[in-house]
Amino acid sequence: MNHPAQLAALKKPLPPELLAALQAVFADRVTTSLAMREHHGRDESSYDPMLPDAVVFAQTTEEVAEAVKLCSSFDIPMIPYGTGTSLEGHILALRGGITIDLSQMSKVLAVHAEDQTATVQAGVTRKQLNQEIKDTGLFFPIDPGADASLGGMAATRASGTNAVRYGTMRENVMALTVVTADGRIIKTGTRARKSSAGYDLTRIFVGSEGTLGIITEVTVRLYPQPEAVSAAVCSFPNTAAAVNTVIQTIQMGVPVARVEFLDENAVRSINRHDKLNLPEKPLLLFEFHGSEHGVQEQAQVVQELAGEHDAIGFEWATRPEDRSRLWTARHNAYFAMLQMRPGARAISTDCCVPISRLAECILDTQADCEKNDMIHGIVGHVGDGNFHVLMMVDPHDPADVAKAEGVNARMVARAISMDGTCTGEHGVGMHKMDFLVQEHGVEAIEQMRILKRAFDPKNIMNPGKILHSVQETI
Amino acid sequence: MNHPAQLAALKKPLPPELLAALQAVFADRVTTSLAMREHHGRDESSYDPMLPDAVVFAQTTEEVAEAVKLCSSFDIPMIPYGTGTSLEGHILALRGGITIDLSQMSKVLAVHAEDQTATVQAGVTRKQLNQEIKDTGLFFPIDPGADASLGGMAATRASGTNAVRYGTMRENVMALTVVTADGRIIKTGTRARKSSAGYDLTRIFVGSEGTLGIITEVTVRLYPQPEAVSAAVCSFPNTAAAVNTVIQTIQMGVPVARVEFLDENAVRSINRHDKLNLPEKPLLLFEFHGSEHGVQEQAQVVQELAGEHDAIGFEWATRPEDRSRLWTARHNAYFAMLQMRPGARAISTDCCVPISRLAECILDTQADCEKNDMIHGIVGHVGDGNFHVLMMVDPHDPADVAKAEGVNARMVARAISMDGTCTGEHGVGMHKMDFLVQEHGVEAIEQMRILKRAFDPKNIMNPGKILHSVQETI
Repeated sequence: MNHPAQLAALKKPLPPELLAALQAVFADRVTTSLAMREHHGRDESSYDPMLPDAVVFAQTTEEVAEAVKLCSSFDIPMIPYGTGTSLEGHILALRGGITIDLSQMSKVLAVHAEDQTATVQAGVTRKQLNQEIKDTGLFFPIDPGADASLGGMAATRASGTNAVRYGTMRENVMALTVVTADGRIIKTGTRARKSSAGYDLTRIFVGSEGTLGIITEVTVRLYPQPEAVSAAVCSFPNTAAAVNTVIQTIQMGVPVARVEFLDENAVRSINRHDKLNLPEKPLLLFEFHGSEHGVQEQAQVVQELAGEHDAIGFEWATRPEDRSRLWTARHNAYFAMLQMRPGARAISTDCCVPISRLAECILDTQADCEKNDMIHGIVGHVGDGNFHVLMMVDPHDPADVAKAEGVNARMVARAISMDGTCTGEHGVGMHKMDFLVQEHGVEAIEQMRILKRAFDPKNIMNPGKILHSVQETI
Repeated sequence: MNHPAQLAALKKPLPPELLAALQAVFADRVTTSLAMREHHGRDESSYDPMLPDAVVFAQTTEEVAEAVKLCSSFDIPMIPYGTGTSLEGHILALRGGITIDLSQMSKVLAVHAEDQTATVQAGVTRKQLNQEIKDTGLFFPIDPGADASLGGMAATRASGTNAVRYGTMRENVMALTVVTADGRIIKTGTRARKSSAGYDLTRIFVGSEGTLGIITEVTVRLYPQPEAVSAAVCSFPNTAAAVNTVIQTIQMGVPVARVEFLDENAVRSINRHDKLNLPEKPLLLFEFHGSEHGVQEQAQVVQELAGEHDAIGFEWATRPEDRSRLWTARHNAYFAMLQMRPGARAISTDCCVPISRLAECILDTQADCEKNDMIHGIVGHVGDGNFHVLMMVDPHDPADVAKAEGVNARMVARAISMDGTCTGEHGVGMHKMDFLVQEHGVEAIEQMRILKRAFDPKNIMNPGKILHSVQETI
C-alpha cells in the first residue's frame, strides 16, 4: 500500500544532472523556486500540498517529450499540470519529481467549423476555446464549473452540467496527441465521427490522470449553438419531490440540456454569496436547448411533472442575464458553501448511480450527513444520476475529518451497491483509490495494473494516483 | 509480417490432451466435425475459409473461462464466435485452434427499464433483444444490418444506420464481463451513466475483435421508442447533390435518426431484388425520430435543403409498412448487389471521413471504380461520414481481385489524407491490418502492440487480427 508517508520515503533527491539537462532545454522555463513549487503542489482538494522538486513550463509537444525522456532516464516522477483545479489530489507530487506545466501550451491549433471539431493544445481552457470559436455559431459544451484546461479535462474524464445532453469528455474527445512514458509522441484517433480501426487508445488516455502518458493536444467535438435556449427554476417541499421530478424527466426521454439539483443548504449558501432570494428549499435548475418549439415542448412536459411533485414557484428565466445569474450562482456553490463554516476546508466527493436509484442514494446520504452533524451541502448534475457532497471540516481536527470520510465511504458503498460508481466526474486521484477495488473487484483492478505496468514500466508517470502499489508484483 | 501462409506454418497440431480436457468439460458441446469447423471458419468476407481444429459451445462465462484456461495451458489459439456475420475475416482460424461459439449464451439477464439499460449474454442478437424488450417502450438502436450478436457487435465496435443519432457500440456499451487471456473473469464498468473511476477497461475491449479477451456479457443503453417516426425518400440528379444535402443537414444540427445514401448501382440492384421501382438515380433515405412536431420540423428543414439540391420526388413514407419495405430493401443491398454479377464474390470495404470531405471522398472513389471497370455499388451511413463500397470480383481471377484491392487501398489512403479512418464500422480483421499503420503511425501502433502483449502475452487470443507480428519483439 503506497500511503503518502511510504511514498515520500520512496522519494529520491533531484539529481543535479537532471536539473542541468532540463535547464539546457528549458532555460528560464524551469524553476525550483519554493513559491512556484508550492503553487504546483496543491489542487482544490483538502490535501496538504506535496511539492515537486522543480517545475518546467513546456510550450510544445516536442518539449514535453524532451522533459519526459530526461526524467525517464533518471527514473524521476513527472506530473502534468493544467490549471490546478482537480478535486481529489490528482497533481500532488507524492514522490517529488518534476511538474510539467502545460499552461503555456495555449494555442487553438485548428477549428474545422464545417466538421464541428477543434484541435487545441492541452493548456487551452474551455472558456478560451468558447471565446475563440464564438463567431462560428458553434460551442464546446463540457463545463465542469472551473475554467479547466482541455488537457486536464481529458485526463480526468471531466463532465459537468451539460453532460446529460452532450456527454462527457469520454464521448467528446475525438483524438489526442500523447507523450508516452518513454518520451515517444503518439497520435490517437482521427477527426472521423466513428472508427473501428484498432484499439481505442484515445479512451485509454481519457481519464488516466497522467498515469499512462501526458496529453499534449486534444481534438474535441463542437456543437451548433442552439436556436433557442430557455431556463427554469423551481423549488420543492423536499428532496424526494425534486429528485423524483428529475427521474421522471429522464425516463420520459426529455432531452434536457442541464438539470441541476441544490439542496436547501446549498440554496441558502448561494442566496448569501450571490445576493439572491431563492426560497430556501430543495431546488432544480433546468436548461433547455433546441428549436423554439422544441424548447417549449420540453419545458411544458417538465413543468407538468414538477407540478405533480408539488413544485413551488416554477419560474422562467428567459432573459440571458437572468439565466447567466442563476448559472453563475450554481457554479459558485462550492465557494458559497465554504463560507458556511469560516476557516473550514471542504471535503468534496461525488458518485453516480443509475437514475432510478438517485432519490434513495441522495436521501440516505443526506440522512447520514445530518446524523453526523456535518455542515454540508448536496448539489448534483442529477440528470446523469451524479451528485456531489461538500462537507466543511476543521482540517486540524482528525475526528472531524474522519467523520466526513466515514460519510464519504458509506456514500460510495451505497452507490456501488446500486450498480453505480465511486466517482462520476471528480476522478480517483488519491482520494478514491481504495474505493476502486470495491467498485471493480480485484480481477479488474489487476487488469488495470497490467495496463499501467505495460504503459509505464518504471512507475514514474504521476505515481501514487488511481492504483495502489503498481510495482508490487513487477 | 504474419501473412496467412506464414501463420499457417505456425499452426500447431491440436494436442489430444487438450481435446480430451475440453470433452471432459463440454461433453457433446465440443466437436471436431468438418461441417461444424467449416461453418465456423468463415465469415461474410471474401476470404477462403480457415478452419479451427475444434469448436466448443459455451453456455456460461465460467465455461468460457474453463475453455480459455485449457487452451492457454497448451498455448493453443482461440477465437470467439457469435453469428459469423463479420466482414473482414475476423473469425477465421488463421493458426487453427479452438473456436469458442457463444451463440448458446442467449439469455437476456436483466432489463432495467427504469434506467434504460439491459444486460445480456454475449450470444443474444440485437433482434432478440428488441423482441424481448418491446413491451417496455424502449429499444436498442444499434443496427449494423445483420442480426449480429451483442458480444460480436461490442467486439467489433459495430454501428450502422442509427449511429448518427444514437452513437455506436463505443457510446452504448456501459459494462462488460470479459474472460482474460489467462482465464480470469473481470467486470468492467457499471450501470452509472458516467464514471471517472479509473482506466476505461470497457472501451479497451470494445473494438478489440477478440484479441485481448473474450466478451461474455454486455450491458447496453436503451432508448425510449420515439413518440413519432417518419421517413422520407428522395432521388438526386447526381451523387454530389445527394451528399451535399446530407452535409448541410448535419452542419445545421438536424438530429436525423438515419440518413442513408445509395448510388444508382445500389438502387438498380434493390429495385430488381425487392421489386421496387425507385428512380435509378442516387438516393437518400431519411428517418426522423422525435415528438410529432419535432419530426415535422426536422423533415421540413431537410425537404428544403433537398429542394435546393434539385431533389427529384421527395416522398414521405408515413405508413410503417412503407418504411419497413424501404429499410428492408436497404438492408438487402449487400445481397442485391451480389446479384449484379452472378458467381462473383463481393469485396466489401468501408471508410469514414469528416463530414465536410464526404462528397469529395465518395466522388473520387466512384470515379476510381468506374475508371477500373469495377462492377460496384456505394452505400453509406452518410450522416456519420461513413460509406461502403462493394466490388463484385471473380475470386479465381487474381488480376480482378488485385484491381479491387487497388481501389480499396486508394480509398483508404484518400480517407486518411482527409483526417478520416480506414474503417468506420467493419473493423480491421485481416483485411485492414496494413492500413492501420498508415492511419495511426508507427508510434501509436507500437502502443497498441504494448497493450496486446500485456493483455495476451502468448498471442493466443484470435491471433493474426488487428496487428501484424505482435510477437516479433517479445
